[in-house]
Amino acid sequence: MGDAKVSENGTEKVSESKVLTENPKYYKTYPEREVHEKFFRDVFEIILKDALFEGIQRDQPVVRFEQPHDLWKILNLKLGRDPAHNHDVLLDLVKDVIKYSVKTGHPYFINQLYSGIDPYGVAAEWVASALNGSVYTYEVAPVFTLMELEVFERMRNIIGFPKNQGDGLFCPGGSLANGYAISVARYKKRPEIKELGLSGVKPMIMFVSEDAHYSFKKLASFQGIGLKNVVGVKVDSRGKMNVTELDKEIQSSIDKGFDPFLVSATAGTTVLGAFDPIDEIAEVCKKYGLWLHVDGAWGGGALMSDTYRDLMKGIEKADSVTWNPHKLLCAPQQCSTFLLKDGTIATDAHATRATYLFQQDKFYEAQFDTGDKHIQCGRRADVLKFWLMWKAKGKDGFEAHIDHIFGLAKFCVEELRRRGPSFKLLLEDPECTNVVFWYIPPSLQDMNQSSPEFWDRIHKIAPKIKERMMRQGTMMCTYQPLRQYQNFFRVVIQSSEVNEKDVTYFLDEIEKCGKDL
Amino acid sequence: MGDAKVSENGTEKVSESKVLTENPKYYKTYPEREVHEKFFRDVFEIILKDALFEGIQRDQPVVRFEQPHDLWKILNLKLGRDPAHNHDVLLDLVKDVIKYSVKTGHPYFINQLYSGIDPYGVAAEWVASALNGSVYTYEVAPVFTLMELEVFERMRNIIGFPKNQGDGLFCPGGSLANGYAISVARYKKRPEIKELGLSGVKPMIMFVSEDAHYSFKKLASFQGIGLKNVVGVKVDSRGKMNVTELDKEIQSSIDKGFDPFLVSATAGTTVLGAFDPIDEIAEVCKKYGLWLHVDGAWGGGALMSDTYRDLMKGIEKADSVTWNPHKLLCAPQQCSTFLLKDGTIATDAHATRATYLFQQDKFYEAQFDTGDKHIQCGRRADVLKFWLMWKAKGKDGFEAHIDHIFGLAKFCVEELRRRGPSFKLLLEDPECTNVVFWYIPPSLQDMNQSSPEFWDRIHKIAPKIKERMMRQGTMMCTYQPLRQYQNFFRVVIQSSEVNEKDVTYFLDEIEKCGKDL
Repeated sequence: MGDAKVSENGTEKVSESKVLTENPKYYKTYPEREVHEKFFRDVFEIILKDALFEGIQRDQPVVRFEQPHDLWKILNLKLGRDPAHNHDVLLDLVKDVIKYSVKTGHPYFINQLYSGIDPYGVAAEWVASALNGSVYTYEVAPVFTLMELEVFERMRNIIGFPKNQGDGLFCPGGSLANGYAISVARYKKRPEIKELGLSGVKPMIMFVSEDAHYSFKKLASFQGIGLKNVVGVKVDSRGKMNVTELDKEIQSSIDKGFDPFLVSATAGTTVLGAFDPIDEIAEVCKKYGLWLHVDGAWGGGALMSDTYRDLMKGIEKADSVTWNPHKLLCAPQQCSTFLLKDGTIATDAHATRATYLFQQDKFYEAQFDTGDKHIQCGRRADVLKFWLMWKAKGKDGFEAHIDHIFGLAKFCVEELRRRGPSFKLLLEDPECTNVVFWYIPPSLQDMNQSSPEFWDRIHKIAPKIKERMMRQGTMMCTYQPLRQYQNFFRVVIQSSEVNEKDVTYFLDEIEKCGKDL
Repeated sequence: MGDAKVSENGTEKVSESKVLTENPKYYKTYPEREVHEKFFRDVFEIILKDALFEGIQRDQPVVRFEQPHDLWKILNLKLGRDPAHNHDVLLDLVKDVIKYSVKTGHPYFINQLYSGIDPYGVAAEWVASALNGSVYTYEVAPVFTLMELEVFERMRNIIGFPKNQGDGLFCPGGSLANGYAISVARYKKRPEIKELGLSGVKPMIMFVSEDAHYSFKKLASFQGIGLKNVVGVKVDSRGKMNVTELDKEIQSSIDKGFDPFLVSATAGTTVLGAFDPIDEIAEVCKKYGLWLHVDGAWGGGALMSDTYRDLMKGIEKADSVTWNPHKLLCAPQQCSTFLLKDGTIATDAHATRATYLFQQDKFYEAQFDTGDKHIQCGRRADVLKFWLMWKAKGKDGFEAHIDHIFGLAKFCVEELRRRGPSFKLLLEDPECTNVVFWYIPPSLQDMNQSSPEFWDRIHKIAPKIKERMMRQGTMMCTYQPLRQYQNFFRVVIQSSEVNEKDVTYFLDEIEKCGKDL
């Protein structure tokens, strides 16, 4: 690794500053062919080799793990007064960043609800970065504004919302998309809160399943609703919301004099991949007059497949939907949408009409300045990657992708069954591409599985296996506890590069890392 | 423009699907050399030429403006079932996206608080996109996690916060950074609200200047505080918060039985570029025991310059600071930070301890999993661009950049004075690089400037000039009304590629577009 020549030396500092004054190219915020073309080209070649082609081959490590204090010593992260402005030093830094970063596009990275690398998505991100646009007014983002309108209309059509109406927002992640759901649902119930705040109103209550994403709690707290007013409705054995319980909880909160306003059904829970029964939940929402949100951040992508879209039967009855193409559809992060049946409520709930940005005396129709419905001001053109991917693959391409990965998840379940007693499925028939199970090393296979001792020991197995696979860089797969369940593995099939042989490898690798425990 | 062959024809659909099944490369989320290397290379060449070098030369248009309905017809935006998967078609689409997008990196784009194109920033964005990391746990983002720690420590040092303590968060824009300020200040005053919500508490009141960014109102509303509880304190003739008024407003809200909790001083207001007197505001905050936030989203970059940092005298007394390197320092969007003197309050205020992500039984120190202090879950590695820029230029490079653009703003003011009576400065001595003025066409130069008729006519001049410059693509500069002031121009000098000749050009162009009005 090169030395970036960060110097504390005063004399040297002066001479460096002189270099700057005499060579404005070193501080200018403008690319000059003479200095920067070679830099762009060299970085591009490094990216192609280390991050997009060779670097994510199966024979390459997913991660070169180092403990934080060791990695600090390896990397030259320190920043100072003096510029490096040395081509080779900067390239070495870029190489090291890639070398020690986790290869999330690697087929053996199945650790999160994102993975794979979509080539069209990545190329589109490069374009978006070079254009450095902000999608709030048509005047500065004409192409991206229209592109968003098209993408949202298609997504709403696929959900089954009425044609040529409704709304959509690109969000910096699914958590904030769910935050938008809280905000518009609250506005629908009590529009005066926008002006007056929550002080003095009775507690507003929202309902999600106990397996819903933690963003509901986090955002409800951020938005002044309070953690305790997020009711986690009991789930059934498959992790799906119990609708009878939901009804009871709503009635109970009314009886207590509270003010229910929102139910969120999860389409693809984070850990188990469960789909709440939207159709039945919609009935309950109708009965009590509540906003129905569907959090399809994870599972929403399955709407692209005629085979799997029925997992979300009734989704067209929702008032709003979170759907992150950066998850199941593998767009680069972030690409997260919040889709609405109502065309004006996001603007009504959020607009503050800043006169320096949303002037009403422009020479084009002001409705094309779409920024005021967002809580962000400046906002990246996340639409471009998804749009270019869609152009390249078509909805048919997304469907083929979904069918492939859902099929592979089923294969993984069969393979786990075949490998008993070393593996024990937590869910016999998962609905999404999450496959959840325990690995039981030979030393524990004869123990009584109803004893607390067995589960205490099982609980410590997954972290140990995870440590070993990370230290070797052979794969990355997550584990977690959930409710009454002790630590179990969650394999997530998401990249369509993954094949049956890879799935076999995942299970082999877990066995290899754990068999002596 | 190529035809993307979006077909509604059922027969053709079937054959396309067959192509997909037989050619998994068309839907796979994994780059394959055979198909995608050429695509990457060709897109890269288009970006270099159209977005980074030739496309932003001074003799090229800043924008090729088309009305929305016309642009819709020109661009092939429509998405359908069928894939294009045709190299040339996709490249044509990319070319058109760039062609009709606004060139925000062009020296003649001075329309927003971002412009210029930092080559190191852009290259770093490409790396980040290819790595597709999410900065919430050390296990998936080891390099970016440490990099954030270093960048935040340096930024806090520059602010003047105590060494080796405090905290920092990269945010999806300055609006959300200000939202974090509201959240932690509220938590500091009433920690129980995290759990219980705002229902039942007395109104919590926050104070900003009347010229503060609209995000305070927007986020306060989103966070359940309510628009009416954001007090806009009167500003003086230069747009700086009147501290006597602030004191009165706080006392008055206490007298009403309300609960003041936060004052935000703006360091560089959006329109006038005013710096609120932080030192004096800090005294008031101390007197009443209120959280002091400094919104330096725009002006914060001036901290890099020994010459200009005194504009923010007293900033080290703040509890928190918003500072967007994507504004004055020209990092690509988004690169927005929220910096804290307190090292634990962001975690205390926001953590929900999701067990599937922030497992406590990992094999490295859990404190390096930094995600739970954020309200986002997945989060892009915005740190990389700023870090690589800093490595390349050093703090000295940022200082040279700041000194250059602040100097140019002064030149612009002089030039405007020289050109009277055609130009009238709104602020004789602006503090930041915002230069605000009216253009007075010859037809109005003899009118009585104290008459309402004069100002009615002036109000209509800027929109007309803006329309003309956009239709011709010669430059983009914004105008707006503010308080008692009718529409005026705001020139923002921000890109260090801009020189004195360019500033002269801006004023010439405004005259050229407006002299017959």
